[in-house]
Amino acid sequence: MANSKKHKSALSEKEGVLQTDITDGLAISKIKTKRKLQPSVEELVSGILSQDISSLSRAITLIESTNANHTKKANDIIKRCLPHTNKSIRVGITGVPGVGKSTFIEVFGKYLTSIGKKVAVLAVDPSSSITKGSILGDKTRMEDLVKDKHAYIRPSASGESLGGVARKTRETIILCEAAGFDTILIETVGVGQSETAVHSMVDFFLLLKLAGAGDELQGIKRGIIEMADAIVINKADGDNIKRAKIAKVEFNRALHLYPEKDSAWQPKVSICSALYNEGVSDIWEMIMSYYDMTSKNKYFEFKRNEQNKYWLLQTINERLKSDFFNQPTIKKELEKQLQLIENNKTTPFVAADYLLNL
Amino acid sequence: MANSKKHKSALSEKEGVLQTDITDGLAISKIKTKRKLQPSVEELVSGILSQDISSLSRAITLIESTNANHTKKANDIIKRCLPHTNKSIRVGITGVPGVGKSTFIEVFGKYLTSIGKKVAVLAVDPSSSITKGSILGDKTRMEDLVKDKHAYIRPSASGESLGGVARKTRETIILCEAAGFDTILIETVGVGQSETAVHSMVDFFLLLKLAGAGDELQGIKRGIIEMADAIVINKADGDNIKRAKIAKVEFNRALHLYPEKDSAWQPKVSICSALYNEGVSDIWEMIMSYYDMTSKNKYFEFKRNEQNKYWLLQTINERLKSDFFNQPTIKKELEKQLQLIENNKTTPFVAADYLLNL
Repeated sequence: MANSKKHKSALSEKEGVLQTDITDGLAISKIKTKRKLQPSVEELVSGILSQDISSLSRAITLIESTNANHTKKANDIIKRCLPHTNKSIRVGITGVPGVGKSTFIEVFGKYLTSIGKKVAVLAVDPSSSITKGSILGDKTRMEDLVKDKHAYIRPSASGESLGGVARKTRETIILCEAAGFDTILIETVGVGQSETAVHSMVDFFLLLKLAGAGDELQGIKRGIIEMADAIVINKADGDNIKRAKIAKVEFNRALHLYPEKDSAWQPKVSICSALYNEGVSDIWEMIMSYYDMTSKNKYFEFKRNEQNKYWLLQTINERLKSDFFNQPTIKKELEKQLQLIENNKTTPFVAADYLLNL
Repeated sequence: MANSKKHKSALSEKEGVLQTDITDGLAISKIKTKRKLQPSVEELVSGILSQDISSLSRAITLIESTNANHTKKANDIIKRCLPHTNKSIRVGITGVPGVGKSTFIEVFGKYLTSIGKKVAVLAVDPSSSITKGSILGDKTRMEDLVKDKHAYIRPSASGESLGGVARKTRETIILCEAAGFDTILIETVGVGQSETAVHSMVDFFLLLKLAGAGDELQGIKRGIIEMADAIVINKADGDNIKRAKIAKVEFNRALHLYPEKDSAWQPKVSICSALYNEGVSDIWEMIMSYYDMTSKNKYFEFKRNEQNKYWLLQTINERLKSDFFNQPTIKKELEKQLQLIENNKTTPFVAADYLLNL
């Protein structure tokens, strides 16, 4: 631990002069000042596998770095950690701001560590680049969970596109699992495309809703209700209890209008009060019954495989698109073609053929 | 008309020896046998604009052809027809087999021609390549509408991918509108991705449901309810009326759980009996009130522009993907990488980088 701490301060103080190519043990022991600068891939991997939090954090920092050498190291680390993952459950948690996500995650996380789980809390929140990291704010609000030795909270990488954040989060999951975290909570804000990204990296997707918000139209993006494996109505306390129960009936009815999921799981509606720590253990039991059911019917493993394929194809498609549309000629001609389409001078298909043949 | 009929039989009998480069009027009048073979772009365009159905049909056949010369001619025709479109309303109609789509479209179409509309019925149904054209079946079931001079029914192009059918249908819409059809009904079967395609080419999206089907879980694909501007509960007759009314209340309640649409239109639920011609005019009034509202708030025009952009980008993206994944090396290496991912030897992201750098 003392050693790791040294690494950490060295990293933050001297990141500008890091020499990333020194991985040879002999060279490191001879040049003591450089030894401090950055641990080798081997050291980080063995640190992660022995559940050292500093090694985990430093490796995640490499994942988040835009430096090509760091990326190479990060890829090496991930590759070596891969055989030690997959022994976990990944839970996505979404809901609009104000629904009480931080309080819920804190209380839920504390409950999980109290029953012997090791909990990592991550986030997919591209907007954090604007708000300077909303989860960072969460971290100060999750005071108890931050102090919990069996919990690890990592803010979202900032200054990134959704694709970038999603990739880094997927890779961070691997490292957390290799470091012994068996329950991964991934938070996202229910207002954009990030739900689809999170849905594609978790085993169970939980939508938090407010009790007593009137008509239940709380700005949740279309399609999110359809993704949910559970709707949890939060703040079911005090005057809200009755309204929460009514909302539960309404949502149950609405969920029954949807066809059966591929998992054969019928989404559940649950009420809870994170503030008063009520209904929290029920949610975990529900997730466990999902886990049992989908492990038996093999959907659990099937879904993880499908998610891997999805991210492979998704990454390729995104790169093909960005390579094409970032060409200066295409940028200029695309504008022209869009104008022609708007003026009824060409069709989208003829315009597409034209741009592809440039 | 007689002339056009000659063209039609010549086309079907002698398609193998068509000479598509003869567009010169003089040459055509001199070589009478060749004159029969295929009318020029000019002739077809002027035929379409003077609402000649044979010209319209022949031009659509060119759109559907896989012959490069035909495609070139088709693109020319479409380009010249473009300034004459957009004076229409395009309505998508979906629902699972058995919901009564053919009967509904026949009765709805007859009602529309009775109030002075000119109605074209198209389809997006990639499965027709297997069933040898399900709409062709529909056509024989829509006996009255087929005979109606103010209606035009065109089966889906068969033997095509969804992307191919969608493109051809979009282009066919343009020609139909140029030929004076002001109400375009586009049918699709509610069991696959074709709904998204149809949703992206219509102004108004109508979902047909069955009354009295019990729990309302009728195999409709997730997300389709969210696309609907209206849910019409069909077969609300005889013993079904009560159940249809209950279903109406249920769906209305469910629709209120969704957030407001970009159009600001609140989706409506309506009941009808196509068989007994009841409730059909109400549906048209509903569509007209949608038209009025979205014309005033400019959403109507905005959506058509967005759809054009969507099809431009969609066409480019599909081509980029198919060009990449159809390379023999990529095909082989993709399989290998997928295997490595499944065995926890690499991540989707590293595999994607590898494939892109091949």
